[in-house]
Amino acid sequence: MTDSNDGLSKATRPGKMKSRRYRELWTRPGYLVRRLHQIHIGLFAEECGKEDVTPVQFAILSVLQGGEEMDQLTLSTSVGIDRTSGADVIRRLERRGLVQRESSVLDRRAKLVRITEQGKEFVARVRPMMARAQERLLSPLTDDERAEFYRLINRLVDANNDSSRAPMGSV
Amino acid sequence: MTDSNDGLSKATRPGKMKSRRYRELWTRPGYLVRRLHQIHIGLFAEECGKEDVTPVQFAILSVLQGGEEMDQLTLSTSVGIDRTSGADVIRRLERRGLVQRESSVLDRRAKLVRITEQGKEFVARVRPMMARAQERLLSPLTDDERAEFYRLINRLVDANNDSSRAPMGSV
Repeated sequence: MTDSNDGLSKATRPGKMKSRRYRELWTRPGYLVRRLHQIHIGLFAEECGKEDVTPVQFAILSVLQGGEEMDQLTLSTSVGIDRTSGADVIRRLERRGLVQRESSVLDRRAKLVRITEQGKEFVARVRPMMARAQERLLSPLTDDERAEFYRLINRLVDANNDSSRAPMGSV
Repeated sequence: MTDSNDGLSKATRPGKMKSRRYRELWTRPGYLVRRLHQIHIGLFAEECGKEDVTPVQFAILSVLQGGEEMDQLTLSTSVGIDRTSGADVIRRLERRGLVQRESSVLDRRAKLVRITEQGKEFVARVRPMMARAQERLLSPLTDDERAEFYRLINRLVDANNDSSRAPMGSV
């Protein structure tokens, strides 16, 4: 645990790069997207630190916040994770008393998930922290640039959506 | 394993969304960045499928491709992963004969890593597949939009770099 906290990783910035092989890495879009994803996880953890919640856990709670119950698979899919990871994340939220699960009457293999009162309070408390992480992520851009970044990344996600799948492992 | 392949996850697209709670999720930049990251992993796996390599493994090999040996920690940091994950990824590459490790003469705790001939051949073979994945990722954008996306995401990664850290877990 010490080791993994210890290993805060900062990729060398273009200005500091010495050789062409770094520069090549830096210009690869996949690499930049991974770095930005890591940055978001870092900011989210900093802002929500003591609440011990990940972006995916918060996304699941936010979707359930609407009030209706949802089957576990639809819920996982709606936040972009696969069935197995979804079941795992939801089980953890259940253990903390933030969601409840029950078997569906129509299909006993399906699990229906709903947010608890405690879960709603949690979302209300964590939402401003989450918002600050998002704000910090985009703070280097002007308002116009943010709007443009939104437009372009929405376009990329939307058009590529069918190629997407949950990560097969983190590294 | 079947389950995790089975769970190909496609987030509902804005056009298909029924309720406001999805739309809120969709506009969060952190969520969009995670989706785009997953999409890239998916495209990379599709293009490089039979070579059994991840973007991070390929990044490490690419950095080493320059020829010089590098200590394990600097190498991990340069591709944006922490010490523990780096050691794990490099060990796997070593087992496949793609890199070699030896203890440093100056500091016996430090491990020096270098690419093998087999590793160089691997990079040469996989590079066009990697390039196709990158090309597909950005294919929804025009040339001007790509340039703008590069500029904005580079700005975000560069300015936020100090907040970054390796993910503490994938979900």
